[in-house]
Amino acid sequence: MKYNGTHLFQKIYDYAIHRIESGEWKAHDKLPSVRSMAEKMKVHRLTVLKAYQLLKDQKKIYVKDRSGYFVRPEGLQTIDPSDNPIVSSFLYKNHLSEIHQIEVDYQFSKALINPNLLPNHFFAEFLKDVLLKEPEMIGTYSSLEGDLELREQLAAFFAEQSDIHVHSDELLICSGSQSMISLVAQTFLKRGDMVLLERPSYSMAIDVFLREGAQVETVDISPTGYDMEEIEEKMKQHRPKIFYLNPTFQNPTGYTVPSKQRKQLVELAEKYPCLILEDDTQYDMYFEQKPPAPVFAYDTEGYVIYLRSYSKYICPGLRIAVAACRYPLMKHLKIAKSLADNGVPLVNQKMFLPYFFSERMQLHIEKLRIALAVRKELMEAELAHSNWRWQSPDGGLNLWIQLPDRLPVDKLLSLALKNSISFVPGEICDPLKENRSWIRLSYSFVSESKIQSGVSKLLELAKEIET
Amino acid sequence: MKYNGTHLFQKIYDYAIHRIESGEWKAHDKLPSVRSMAEKMKVHRLTVLKAYQLLKDQKKIYVKDRSGYFVRPEGLQTIDPSDNPIVSSFLYKNHLSEIHQIEVDYQFSKALINPNLLPNHFFAEFLKDVLLKEPEMIGTYSSLEGDLELREQLAAFFAEQSDIHVHSDELLICSGSQSMISLVAQTFLKRGDMVLLERPSYSMAIDVFLREGAQVETVDISPTGYDMEEIEEKMKQHRPKIFYLNPTFQNPTGYTVPSKQRKQLVELAEKYPCLILEDDTQYDMYFEQKPPAPVFAYDTEGYVIYLRSYSKYICPGLRIAVAACRYPLMKHLKIAKSLADNGVPLVNQKMFLPYFFSERMQLHIEKLRIALAVRKELMEAELAHSNWRWQSPDGGLNLWIQLPDRLPVDKLLSLALKNSISFVPGEICDPLKENRSWIRLSYSFVSESKIQSGVSKLLELAKEIET
Repeated sequence: MKYNGTHLFQKIYDYAIHRIESGEWKAHDKLPSVRSMAEKMKVHRLTVLKAYQLLKDQKKIYVKDRSGYFVRPEGLQTIDPSDNPIVSSFLYKNHLSEIHQIEVDYQFSKALINPNLLPNHFFAEFLKDVLLKEPEMIGTYSSLEGDLELREQLAAFFAEQSDIHVHSDELLICSGSQSMISLVAQTFLKRGDMVLLERPSYSMAIDVFLREGAQVETVDISPTGYDMEEIEEKMKQHRPKIFYLNPTFQNPTGYTVPSKQRKQLVELAEKYPCLILEDDTQYDMYFEQKPPAPVFAYDTEGYVIYLRSYSKYICPGLRIAVAACRYPLMKHLKIAKSLADNGVPLVNQKMFLPYFFSERMQLHIEKLRIALAVRKELMEAELAHSNWRWQSPDGGLNLWIQLPDRLPVDKLLSLALKNSISFVPGEICDPLKENRSWIRLSYSFVSESKIQSGVSKLLELAKEIET
Repeated sequence: MKYNGTHLFQKIYDYAIHRIESGEWKAHDKLPSVRSMAEKMKVHRLTVLKAYQLLKDQKKIYVKDRSGYFVRPEGLQTIDPSDNPIVSSFLYKNHLSEIHQIEVDYQFSKALINPNLLPNHFFAEFLKDVLLKEPEMIGTYSSLEGDLELREQLAAFFAEQSDIHVHSDELLICSGSQSMISLVAQTFLKRGDMVLLERPSYSMAIDVFLREGAQVETVDISPTGYDMEEIEEKMKQHRPKIFYLNPTFQNPTGYTVPSKQRKQLVELAEKYPCLILEDDTQYDMYFEQKPPAPVFAYDTEGYVIYLRSYSKYICPGLRIAVAACRYPLMKHLKIAKSLADNGVPLVNQKMFLPYFFSERMQLHIEKLRIALAVRKELMEAELAHSNWRWQSPDGGLNLWIQLPDRLPVDKLLSLALKNSISFVPGEICDPLKENRSWIRLSYSFVSESKIQSGVSKLLELAKEIET
């Protein structure tokens, strides 16, 4: 960095560093505020700020929110929680994204595909040609709804593959499905509105609805799906505006809701009018049998918004996802999207299109299914030595595991993190934040060899706690 | 599309097409609802829906929101407003994005750079190498705050170029600046909160704040900047939570707020506490002299969120923008962003980085400045024949023009659109929606030759109205 007014800057810097190094200002002492220092030294506040920032970069001082600058203890290697946004917010709120960001050897918390399982080199070669063929994509804004050719091809693909019949106008390209959950919540919810969530549910979605000021009711999801009477009762009683669900290889449970219930759901949504937000990011990640047709396939009257993402298992670096719904809903979504971000960058869409519809890509998806099934089995084989309980899923990226009563999740998590193993405590996935005996173990991110050693290590730690 | 249950589908299709073609169902008649048709014909509603959709694709019927399907008059070539989301929402609300989407020969409404002025071929070659060097970017999620190397380089670049001194932790990569305006509004505003806006202002930003339920107060922006006393008075009286401003080559006016006022603004923001959202997307688009240092450059206490976008004049297809603010604000922004979209796709960032910092790119920006200055002068030379009034801007993409009293903007716009010329009526840029004698003419999107002929044609149309 270059600094103007160098001698003034140097004056402040020298003043502070001298006091720190001499010990006049001790570890964790508060420095004079930028304002008071500027007045005292008769320099501009910016000059003080720059000097303090250099001291911070040099790890001589640290910042604590609005309260100011403090002398950093010498040789401090451990992270000061107040100085690290990830750790500090993890401390005050168990956000999933923050658990992910803690670097560990055994990342069982990440429900992501290991990048080595993605055909990045092939993709790079492929994209290179796309770029050179259509360089004007770089200088062009996308339309709000997304590239027409991409939407047309996706519409045809959905009809063939998932029994979803949509017109390209009924598709909206988005950047990751989370952005669309967020947009739907903003668009269709008012503060205090009721939202129905599966229990457990996707933690980020829970947070999105709570941020919008929604009230939350839950319906349990089990290996056989929902209790439909419970859903009707809750819809009748609470009149939720939105039911957010993830009925296929659900995150975190891996459970799949059967066809019959999917059809009934649409009827209930019409009866008590309720918008269904169907998050179907795992649809393609089945191990043997294709999952049932989406809830959206039964929606003739426009009560369902359907989300399919290709972020996770194709190209996380491009984050292409798509929302489908009937026209009246789509009109609202488009207006909302025009204000939120005005559309997905064109390059991402143009690169995704030929790649996704290439033979090699479809082959990759098939291979990926096998790789995931193998990982799942490895994890289950290792867990078979324990008294932990779970329902083996037919697809997806996770095992949802019930720990024995004598093994508290928080104790296991804290011991695991110390031993460089991470997983997701069930509480994070529980809209009611009560679920304390379950954990989510993802088998998709850790390498095959590490799945075995990591789970084995985790079971040993559990034994330590239990005995 | 493939359809299951073909003969049932055919039955419905035939039933409907027969009645349409025989004239039994006449133009604009409503078709039986999907539900009643399904009951009557004893088929599933999906089958009816599919048949209706095919009829829609074949332009035999049209859809009108929730009210149903209607027979389309034969030979109807003009767009049915109720069937076209762009036209229909344009009719009910003059959104800027909708004016853009009307295809005309002379697009003076688009404040975008003509794609021919962007070095797309060079960029494509360049990106190709980036891709092949780091193919793993495709399979990798970005961190929430954005690629560290990109943030570090931007921090160094800002220090050198704009007198902005930030740490990489104080930068957040985003997808276009609009997404960040939207995020800031969501994060820091409650329904009913007061927002201060320049008058006129960026129309999308006005819409974003209104959608969040904000109340709006305005301060005029003139060629000499603001009336600082007016701002203090409004801050004192209305206690706005946010002041959204675009002080450099402002959109739509092209005016620039002088340094002295920038400094005072920060003092006022501290005094009445008010968050300043500084949209600085035009910073690099000066014609001769670099603009004054951003308001953010004077912010030592963390009252300013600064937005710099590289969408418009470098790579609209990637949409890279960056927000800068001090840490306490950044903490809130990051939490909000983790819920809104969890970060910008990595490919966009990785491609942008080496390109932006290449010599060729910086050369492009210099050339672009000259190209824009030339276009501006061409437009001004043509307008010199009129009695229209404007202040010649020192940068940016637009002329903000006051029409003579006898020339109503709406009449001119409607006649212009009929003659394949578009511009932005000032009312769209007015938070109070009263400004009826101004228009925004952009010189950045139309080719040089068309600037002359288009403006000349527009002036002729104006004469028609005036006489």
